[in-house]
Amino acid sequence: MAENDSLSAFLESAVDAAKKAGEVIRKGFYQTKHVEHKGQVDLVTETDKACEDLIFNHLKECYPTHEFIGEETTAANGVSELTDEPTWIVDPLDGTTNFVHGFPFVCISIGLTIGKVPTVGVVYNPILNELFTGIKGKGAFLNGNPIKVSSKTELVKSLLATEAGTKRDKATVDATTNRINSLLFKVRSIRMSGSCALNLCGVACGRLDLFYETGFGGPWDVAGGAVILEEAGGVVYDPSGKDFDITCQRIAASNPLLKDAFVEALQESE
Amino acid sequence: MAENDSLSAFLESAVDAAKKAGEVIRKGFYQTKHVEHKGQVDLVTETDKACEDLIFNHLKECYPTHEFIGEETTAANGVSELTDEPTWIVDPLDGTTNFVHGFPFVCISIGLTIGKVPTVGVVYNPILNELFTGIKGKGAFLNGNPIKVSSKTELVKSLLATEAGTKRDKATVDATTNRINSLLFKVRSIRMSGSCALNLCGVACGRLDLFYETGFGGPWDVAGGAVILEEAGGVVYDPSGKDFDITCQRIAASNPLLKDAFVEALQESE
Repeated sequence: MAENDSLSAFLESAVDAAKKAGEVIRKGFYQTKHVEHKGQVDLVTETDKACEDLIFNHLKECYPTHEFIGEETTAANGVSELTDEPTWIVDPLDGTTNFVHGFPFVCISIGLTIGKVPTVGVVYNPILNELFTGIKGKGAFLNGNPIKVSSKTELVKSLLATEAGTKRDKATVDATTNRINSLLFKVRSIRMSGSCALNLCGVACGRLDLFYETGFGGPWDVAGGAVILEEAGGVVYDPSGKDFDITCQRIAASNPLLKDAFVEALQESE
Repeated sequence: MAENDSLSAFLESAVDAAKKAGEVIRKGFYQTKHVEHKGQVDLVTETDKACEDLIFNHLKECYPTHEFIGEETTAANGVSELTDEPTWIVDPLDGTTNFVHGFPFVCISIGLTIGKVPTVGVVYNPILNELFTGIKGKGAFLNGNPIKVSSKTELVKSLLATEAGTKRDKATVDATTNRINSLLFKVRSIRMSGSCALNLCGVACGRLDLFYETGFGGPWDVAGGAVILEEAGGVVYDPSGKDFDITCQRIAASNPLLKDAFVEALQESE
């Protein structure tokens, strides 16, 4: 099989897996309000686990020699090391808080790295029925239509996405809000949607212009979105301006025209 | 006509007007990316004005003796005083920044006050096709299905919505981020979607638990959502805990169970 053919086949398998998991998430999404709190926690855990199993089983059947890294599996087994082997990196349910509350920004994120490079990406929001896909060198798409990043050149006209994260120690919260304070003087406005993968896709399709987050869960939050964003003409990088490292919990994203100004603004906000 | 009949007729007229305006917004929403910046500004202004004209003309034809307050008209003619007469208070396009950027939280907000009391409300997001409606004493609905606020009793399990607003002077921005800092220690997480009316509806249908905003544009941002929220079992109040005043640009919203704790947290965050 030529490389492009196999990449297309990888994408097709990932989309199939995401669609199957999407059914489970959609069902749970409309149930959460009708169960007690303890039941909600169980429902999240069960949905998360069921979706990861479903996705991994589907992909392992197709590609038994590939490696797999998932949020649930890693949480159970400790850190998984990323190797040069083809590796599927999966977040079965990104936006768990949104899922519990019924806020419609939830998604499945599936990324495939080859030689540690994000090569195939699928991010699927089953509530809004938005399927973002990308293959390295072959473009990025939303529900089959090509997407591209915005052409903004000025921070002051840019819409910024970030998140408050989950850590609530004083140092982290202070750093989060000090950074927001500093950036609010430089950008048009700020959005927080509660899903790292959907923020990356938001920049990819030009709904958002800038995104940064530090301290998110792991590579599964960004592996799918990073390919999609890059194939949409965007760039991912460390908030310091250094190269993006998928194993660090630090990411910034924008179109290439905004990168230097955004990095400078992020540095000044520290 | 019995009062209930006339309220139902008012709602029906408002829904018709919102649907018509929704067509215009939907068309513009998918165009904004394809026009230059100056063209974008014009497109917002034109869409806003066209939608307000369309809604006012529709309602004036139905109810020639009623009063009308709209964002565009008020901006042009100065402040409109709210009287006891039946008064339609309209935001033809809430979430203009989202509209320009293609971020799918935009809506039309239409509220009718009678004796200064919000009595009929329509909030319509034509992109996600979500129509929120409410009539005083007759319940609240999303696309025809009854909605109600969440049953959360603890801030720590609550999802909070707020906005960064549009003012960028140091005092306002500092107050905004200091408040967020203080609240982040008390709530589960925070969302910023960029539409005041949709935040109120988010609390009304239990996707969000808490919302506050100060310094928003005017009564048109809240007149429609306030009825919907109250009819969904929620409460609106001044962030100080005092009664909500539709003519002040200050609002807080939640279910009744969270009100006292939320007001206390808001006071401590000042």
